[in-house]
Amino acid sequence: MTFELTVLGSSSALPTSTKFPSAHVLNLHERFFLIDCGEGTQIQLRRSKTRFGKINHIFLSHMHGDHVFGLFGVLSTFNLLGRKTPLHLYGHSDLSHLIDFYTNHFSPENAFPIILHKIVKRDFQLIHEDKLIEVYAFPLKHRVPTFGYLFREKERPYNIRKNMLVKYKLPISMIKLLKEGKDVYTDEGELLRNAEMTEPPYKRRSYAFCSDTMFYKKLVPLLNEVDLLYHEATFAEEDKKLAKLTGHSTASQAATIAKMAGVKELIIGHLSNRYAFPDILLAEAREIFPNTNIAEELKKYTVALSK
Amino acid sequence: MTFELTVLGSSSALPTSTKFPSAHVLNLHERFFLIDCGEGTQIQLRRSKTRFGKINHIFLSHMHGDHVFGLFGVLSTFNLLGRKTPLHLYGHSDLSHLIDFYTNHFSPENAFPIILHKIVKRDFQLIHEDKLIEVYAFPLKHRVPTFGYLFREKERPYNIRKNMLVKYKLPISMIKLLKEGKDVYTDEGELLRNAEMTEPPYKRRSYAFCSDTMFYKKLVPLLNEVDLLYHEATFAEEDKKLAKLTGHSTASQAATIAKMAGVKELIIGHLSNRYAFPDILLAEAREIFPNTNIAEELKKYTVALSK
Repeated sequence: MTFELTVLGSSSALPTSTKFPSAHVLNLHERFFLIDCGEGTQIQLRRSKTRFGKINHIFLSHMHGDHVFGLFGVLSTFNLLGRKTPLHLYGHSDLSHLIDFYTNHFSPENAFPIILHKIVKRDFQLIHEDKLIEVYAFPLKHRVPTFGYLFREKERPYNIRKNMLVKYKLPISMIKLLKEGKDVYTDEGELLRNAEMTEPPYKRRSYAFCSDTMFYKKLVPLLNEVDLLYHEATFAEEDKKLAKLTGHSTASQAATIAKMAGVKELIIGHLSNRYAFPDILLAEAREIFPNTNIAEELKKYTVALSK
Repeated sequence: MTFELTVLGSSSALPTSTKFPSAHVLNLHERFFLIDCGEGTQIQLRRSKTRFGKINHIFLSHMHGDHVFGLFGVLSTFNLLGRKTPLHLYGHSDLSHLIDFYTNHFSPENAFPIILHKIVKRDFQLIHEDKLIEVYAFPLKHRVPTFGYLFREKERPYNIRKNMLVKYKLPISMIKLLKEGKDVYTDEGELLRNAEMTEPPYKRRSYAFCSDTMFYKKLVPLLNEVDLLYHEATFAEEDKKLAKLTGHSTASQAATIAKMAGVKELIIGHLSNRYAFPDILLAEAREIFPNTNIAEELKKYTVALSK
């Protein structure tokens, strides 16, 4: 029941000697989702000890180089490692140019299928789900079409109390109903009330990724009570105009979104290199939303289970 | 009079958590030449404290991803930094596809001219020179068209002895002739013999880059007495067949080339990750050519002046 984010790259458009361009890897119940893929992602994946074969889905926010140039290396390495499993890519339709260029010029015999899921609709939409999790895309407000992503566990089943499992020898059909929150009758006609038989399920956990975007109030309802929010914070408040002009946010604006949405924890990244002391941005954000931290590359951010 | 190589990336096709793909930067008299441009080159350039604005020439060995995928980020960052100076790229004609793809999809308003010098001829050829240095390309033997590069100082002038400069008040025209190695007459008709007036010039220094290539004897005369040779050494001797099959060299083969060419120092790189102990490759090379070392990323290799 892992829910763990690793920030692989957190720089703004210009990487530094210590910061890689945008990339995250999210481990949800041992499904590994790569989110953005800036230059050097495969090196950071190695450093984070992520097994390449575990990654089957990559989500790209938009087609700016600092968010996608690492795809070439990732695809190439997957191929060299003999990957056969299909790889699903999600992003703007222009992503097809990159894939075509790569396959035409660098991997005419790519051994694994690349399945491109073009995000066309400009609204909050389910783009992937399985038994346990669901992934939504939603539009951000940047200079080019850009998407944020929300990763969320599905409703979890009620947990049957251990002592009740011992007391009653429940058939599977009955366990299923109890897990769904229903009352059941035993063969003897005894009513087993769900409230007595079970404990409430764990809350479903969620992570949202918002990079790059200017201050965009429409995000607030989509991010409602998210456990962990990554929001770009390129500029300090004194450069608010520049933020708007370039389609980016200030740290205060990121914190305002976090506060309005009632999220639990905010990670800010994509900080401009112009600030010698990024702690100024952190301070500005914390004034509005205290539980804010600057993204630390290769650190593991875990969302704990709660009821 | 700097002559300094920095290895930025030395991995084989699969980068690791500690090794970047192929890239070197060579500082010749404050001209900075980038040689190959694997993924993450711009990050390694930052770490090596190379000023981006100093780089005006990039030489690409061949069109395999681990040697060129860093170009996207380098070009993009140059553009973001407001570069206006033309950038010269040297390599196989297929490099044009990469540049076209980059400019069409990522930088329609690229602010600096990209000048592509396609290497067409398959022989040893001068591809760049200025007052002090010259650069040659020559074919290697790999699975796709691949070039090695030789960087060499031009013949250096004779050094006029300081005491002679004090003794005679030499006009500029006379100094010029002496520096060229000629004898001169003073206005009073005194013969000033060059051998007495000057010290011999420093030897011209050279660096050659050979990656990727199988054992290729034709390189020997081209690399004659080179000061510093970087030669790939992907495999150990026990995998000699695999080396040939994949168009690569063993460490012993790299050392054999170095020995036959009478180079001064050999750096081996592009070592396959299959060897848990790369020192085995080093030992195999040193048996044939003792002055061999494994490439260390970000280390500065200096070629000293000598007479």
